[in-house]
Amino acid sequence: MIQDYFRSDLSDFKSYKVSKNDYKVRMDANECFSNLPQEIRMKIAWAIEECIFNRYPDAGASMVCELYAQYSNVKSINVMAGNGSDECIQIIANTFLNTGDKVAVQSPDFSMYGLYTRVAGGIPIEIPLGDEFKLDVDGFISIVNKEKVKIVFLSNPNNPTGGIIKRDDIIKIIEGCSCIVVIDEAYFEFYGETIVDKICAYENLIVLRTCSKIGLAAIRLGFLITSPILMGELKKVKPPYNVNAISQCIACVILKDSEIIYKNVERILLERKYLWQKLSNINGIKLYNAQANFILIGVENAQIMKQRLLDAGINIRSFTAITLQNCLRITIGSREENQCLINNISQENIGNI
Amino acid sequence: MIQDYFRSDLSDFKSYKVSKNDYKVRMDANECFSNLPQEIRMKIAWAIEECIFNRYPDAGASMVCELYAQYSNVKSINVMAGNGSDECIQIIANTFLNTGDKVAVQSPDFSMYGLYTRVAGGIPIEIPLGDEFKLDVDGFISIVNKEKVKIVFLSNPNNPTGGIIKRDDIIKIIEGCSCIVVIDEAYFEFYGETIVDKICAYENLIVLRTCSKIGLAAIRLGFLITSPILMGELKKVKPPYNVNAISQCIACVILKDSEIIYKNVERILLERKYLWQKLSNINGIKLYNAQANFILIGVENAQIMKQRLLDAGINIRSFTAITLQNCLRITIGSREENQCLINNISQENIGNI
Repeated sequence: MIQDYFRSDLSDFKSYKVSKNDYKVRMDANECFSNLPQEIRMKIAWAIEECIFNRYPDAGASMVCELYAQYSNVKSINVMAGNGSDECIQIIANTFLNTGDKVAVQSPDFSMYGLYTRVAGGIPIEIPLGDEFKLDVDGFISIVNKEKVKIVFLSNPNNPTGGIIKRDDIIKIIEGCSCIVVIDEAYFEFYGETIVDKICAYENLIVLRTCSKIGLAAIRLGFLITSPILMGELKKVKPPYNVNAISQCIACVILKDSEIIYKNVERILLERKYLWQKLSNINGIKLYNAQANFILIGVENAQIMKQRLLDAGINIRSFTAITLQNCLRITIGSREENQCLINNISQENIGNI
Repeated sequence: MIQDYFRSDLSDFKSYKVSKNDYKVRMDANECFSNLPQEIRMKIAWAIEECIFNRYPDAGASMVCELYAQYSNVKSINVMAGNGSDECIQIIANTFLNTGDKVAVQSPDFSMYGLYTRVAGGIPIEIPLGDEFKLDVDGFISIVNKEKVKIVFLSNPNNPTGGIIKRDDIIKIIEGCSCIVVIDEAYFEFYGETIVDKICAYENLIVLRTCSKIGLAAIRLGFLITSPILMGELKKVKPPYNVNAISQCIACVILKDSEIIYKNVERILLERKYLWQKLSNINGIKLYNAQANFILIGVENAQIMKQRLLDAGINIRSFTAITLQNCLRITIGSREENQCLINNISQENIGNI
């Protein structure tokens, strides 16, 4: 039987669900709401016309890492580029996990931490957040050490809650947990605080970043930032040519002119403020802390609201986990998209749910 | 100690070595020797200008898989795209290997099979090839079954030997080995024979292909072709957005006009014939069977020849493995590059070694 060759520990494994993308208004995937301006796309097209298609890419993506190091105020030797930060998560799991090793994650948090842990043969331990999705820092550290966890993954700001762990608490976790601590700052630009300045102070710290939320989800480019000692071990496991030459070329165009990124972020923050205000005027909707490019809301019947919005051509994110069953995650859209959303979840509709 | 968190089974692990790429003549990496023509690069640039940079790519790379299915004469449901066939190898290892599971490879063969096996916690078993790098098919099958191997990886044509396993023997291996059999056809275009027509006849068969050897190494695009039953299991483990949107866009431009690929292959085959003839006129060089886009040669002192060529600005591939210590692998170059190589390994130089 062919099934005899399958991994029995993955028999119940469900891969990451990608939702259908043909809705008019796409507020489900925490992408930036607008494409790059025409003039930048032309600049990219010119640069790509000069690319050397027949040769393998620069294995270390050195120019990209150099420019990203400048952007994030670290040294380039501390930066590794990945095929999305997804790949960085997988490289971390593969570098440190043997079968049965434990990984601690918050519940809820980004689901890929648990998925790549299981693919690597590890065991994810989900530590539930408390009221208002707040992390009990001391309790978390105590479980991590009691369970002899090998890696902690935390997104900050948290996806999907939008909440944050304050700097002092992050440091408490790094100092208190006897393991590798990965702080995923995928949404850093919409919060503004970072722990990246501490990568050389704490040798167990890894910071993740991505280009996906700031307008470049298409190119799949993420970064892992850490101290030389961990970097050496991670580089052993990194696939040799993991970031293609074209994405490297595009990232160089953008990072040489990071004004493009700042403008995108500024527009998203403006729209977040607008959407927050409009949503807070609607009765029956609970708003959670929103420090990323999305807003998590609590409503009486999330699935019905989700379906009504889908019927109107608006896709937002719902969840199957029990802790999130009354929640919906709304990615910040353009002014027009935000207005369209607000019109569709009017007070009257909420009353009907 | 931070080292306590490292995987002890990877303490001696050496990652894939990427050689420095700043030589005038690059005949070391089995790339196509010429860039895409200007007119095609312009066509690509126009297509990319229209790309949607802010959205995640199509997770299933459906258009690319559809076009590649046509190119390789299979159905699109049998095709999965990867971030290079490298990633396809890693997905296979991750899908089927638990810690301690065995993987059989030929020695020599492409080193990434062993590397990704070890990253996945598996144990590579190297089965040495015989005289003239020939595979003892019955002996191979017998070891695979005795050792209860989980996966067999074989490149055909073989990298680095350039030799091939005939169709009858491939079928004998698929039928005789009680495990997943992966036939890596990275160099298929330069040989012309394939086993891809048998993916539905044998449910334990996976075929790998790549765009890297036919002129698109920069974009990192490989393919895994298999039956629906294995595909279902492999899809569980495939990272969701593994092929970026720009590489998908470029591949579509090329695959819609596969004449570009055929022309590249034709020119390489012509140059292979030329280089083979010239090399065979030089005393002291042994030529191995060359069914790929490179020629493996045997010489008295490979390291000295390699260094002399480097001094002349020509990079070819040498090896550290004992079985290959007198061998050098020369990627087919342009006519000019091939002449330059031949001039530098003249009869006189061989005499001096």
